[in-house]
Amino acid sequence: MQPTQPLTTPRVLARDLASVEPGERATLAGWIHRRRVLASVTFLVLRDRTGLAQVVVKDPATIAQLHGLPEETVVEVTGAVTRNEAAPGGAELTEPVITALTEPALPPPTELWRPTFGAGLPTHLDHAAVTLRHPRHRAAWQLASASMAGFRSALGALDFTEIATPKLVGTATESGANVFTVDYFGRTAYLAQSPQLYKQMLVGVFERVFEVGPVFRAEPHDTVRHLAQYTSLDAELGFIRDHRDVLTVLRAAIAGMVEHIRRYAADAAALLGVELPEVPAEFPVIHFRDALARVGADPDEPDLSPAHERALSEWARTAYGSDFLAVEGYPMGKRPFYTAPEGYGPTGPRGSSGGARGVEPPEGSNSFDLLFRGLELTTGGQRLHRPSDYAAAMARTGTDPVLLAGYLDAFAHGMPPHGGFAIGLERWVARLTGAENVREVTLFPRDLHRLAP
Amino acid sequence: MQPTQPLTTPRVLARDLASVEPGERATLAGWIHRRRVLASVTFLVLRDRTGLAQVVVKDPATIAQLHGLPEETVVEVTGAVTRNEAAPGGAELTEPVITALTEPALPPPTELWRPTFGAGLPTHLDHAAVTLRHPRHRAAWQLASASMAGFRSALGALDFTEIATPKLVGTATESGANVFTVDYFGRTAYLAQSPQLYKQMLVGVFERVFEVGPVFRAEPHDTVRHLAQYTSLDAELGFIRDHRDVLTVLRAAIAGMVEHIRRYAADAAALLGVELPEVPAEFPVIHFRDALARVGADPDEPDLSPAHERALSEWARTAYGSDFLAVEGYPMGKRPFYTAPEGYGPTGPRGSSGGARGVEPPEGSNSFDLLFRGLELTTGGQRLHRPSDYAAAMARTGTDPVLLAGYLDAFAHGMPPHGGFAIGLERWVARLTGAENVREVTLFPRDLHRLAP
Repeated sequence: MQPTQPLTTPRVLARDLASVEPGERATLAGWIHRRRVLASVTFLVLRDRTGLAQVVVKDPATIAQLHGLPEETVVEVTGAVTRNEAAPGGAELTEPVITALTEPALPPPTELWRPTFGAGLPTHLDHAAVTLRHPRHRAAWQLASASMAGFRSALGALDFTEIATPKLVGTATESGANVFTVDYFGRTAYLAQSPQLYKQMLVGVFERVFEVGPVFRAEPHDTVRHLAQYTSLDAELGFIRDHRDVLTVLRAAIAGMVEHIRRYAADAAALLGVELPEVPAEFPVIHFRDALARVGADPDEPDLSPAHERALSEWARTAYGSDFLAVEGYPMGKRPFYTAPEGYGPTGPRGSSGGARGVEPPEGSNSFDLLFRGLELTTGGQRLHRPSDYAAAMARTGTDPVLLAGYLDAFAHGMPPHGGFAIGLERWVARLTGAENVREVTLFPRDLHRLAP
Repeated sequence: MQPTQPLTTPRVLARDLASVEPGERATLAGWIHRRRVLASVTFLVLRDRTGLAQVVVKDPATIAQLHGLPEETVVEVTGAVTRNEAAPGGAELTEPVITALTEPALPPPTELWRPTFGAGLPTHLDHAAVTLRHPRHRAAWQLASASMAGFRSALGALDFTEIATPKLVGTATESGANVFTVDYFGRTAYLAQSPQLYKQMLVGVFERVFEVGPVFRAEPHDTVRHLAQYTSLDAELGFIRDHRDVLTVLRAAIAGMVEHIRRYAADAAALLGVELPEVPAEFPVIHFRDALARVGADPDEPDLSPAHERALSEWARTAYGSDFLAVEGYPMGKRPFYTAPEGYGPTGPRGSSGGARGVEPPEGSNSFDLLFRGLELTTGGQRLHRPSDYAAAMARTGTDPVLLAGYLDAFAHGMPPHGGFAIGLERWVARLTGAENVREVTLFPRDLHRLAP
């Protein structure tokens, strides 16, 4: 390898090459994305975080040097900026001097310069540190990154406080199943399946809170939709009338996510052919009971099947021109213990606050699922807030209140009517990109079989 | 309890009360922060997420009603907006109608309306769901919340991509000690002590990455500075010359954090008497060797003691007027295996890129600690990036490369010179507020003894 020098010239990014005066010398730095050897000229395509740039090599010594610098080798290239409408961005470097910044790279498991990723999912996941560099994989994560920023931005504008809650908990609270156990200084702890209980407690402190962070599910099945760790976009807010106020905030959050993608990840969306949804001013809402009727299901069904969800999404598309549909009033039986029943108000399940929207059968809940393009994206709703309602819920579900003492404390000491929701980041991005398997859009997925890389 | 009604009038926040036309009726909603019963009048101080508002109660029936609504009960209060310069914000509510939104609250473990929190740390931590409501505790977390937003904003502006890395890992990589083990579908997994290896791998994908998330340390000692879970603000970037470029980005990140506090949490900072640091245009830097000499320590000392750190901070304050001081060139022996030695460049430890800053003794590293007001806030530096350097580091430290196969993959397939840093959020806020114990500024701390609430 020839001697190397430090990065002495200020670096120009690929996207900015065309804005350099033609004839001036400029330095690019990045990965050798592709070498194309023709009879009298070799094209070097360089990749950096902003895209691709073309370098034209005619000098035989430099062409020979390039033979020893395989794809993915990191280099610095200084050359003359030259206009060429056929090059990416409309400019290229000519008369280059190439300096390797590391040792020659081993060949990746599949050629990363090909527009379509050429290997299967197992190969990608086994070699993620390298194969994530493929522009399509990078782009998928850029949608995720922009979505997180958009979520925070929308909720920050609504006066939400960001929180950070414990991931190590003493009780497997929400459901005893699917929880990871941890050796915690000789005791048993659990990995939090969601920040649910903590975000509720913190409504008592900040009124409106959100958290973007990892949650853990010891999912024993190998499905295309579940991960052992995923990123949950959680929000919870106080002083609501009912779950409809939660839905309003959910709409704002999703609008922020879409808007951020449009503004900061438009190239990524375009590369993947993502058609961003229009977020309606208000999500259309259908009652669970009416949803069952619409898809011709038995009125006693306790849940919607995947086929039902697809059919309802189709209908929302046709009836409202909406990619989103909220289904409210799910039966209480399928919802967690903290769920507020329909008509829930300050004085209890049949409080006057429910009256305005009509008294519903006792088994319905003030909760909703949000369907997005045929799949459930989010679950949310109103929670119980009166201490006596929690006491009753504990008794009904046979939960020992001692296990939840810190949580129940919050209600005994005054909590407002409140509710919230959680969006699974990877599921959201999978829906946007049309990825069949959520692993395709996760940086280093964890599942039943996979704990590395 | 009297019958309750829903929130029918649009709610006015405490901070906005004075902007309502005097004489108009407005509805506040929040917690009863304090009742002050005088001979002919009772003052009700209401607390919401924006602050306090005063309600004047003269009507005997309403005074009687208030007897049954203890502090922390959540209420809605509708009344006439009245100017009063003595009231918080310059306005109060008179002729109020009070509606409870939940059952009467139990008394908190200490009176939350007192300006100083009246109980010790154990009481606070045992009842955090309630005692976090104390304005001083809320304020401390608002500094944390604003700091996270400022960190992201500063790095976003520098083209960093947000990442989300696995918290469940197959190998206790960075150090075998102080790691939590997890039962992972019958196998042993570990909780990640940092996103270090993943953020490096992702430099190969995005060049510049950051993550704000939980990290886990099975810290077996009960200290005022360590938690079993804390929030790490991590950044890593490629195409650097050396650790000084990392320091430049660290400065930008901290400037962003301070700026966000100034802009979005000024009230919280004022309440806690926080004097925000001036962030200098460049952090002053001292070499480890010179730092030892300056504090009169033995030149063979491998580390700085807490007393040394305090003395050096004092000196930086006097010599540079800076609350920050970077100490660079720490001995390699105290640094993790991926640390780049002094003078490290593209061609190895003695590459020409180090020449510009002089050749140092072989045991020094291209890493730094950042001291802030007498304590180490951050560690950062340049990492190795050549695959042969990792092979040598594995051999030297006796690490089986198979354990780190996915990580080493990234280097074999081309990685640029890179480096990064991590800031402990809770430690940062503790330094700002002067909290002696990092638990005082953590929402629900986890340690050797504490796993609840």
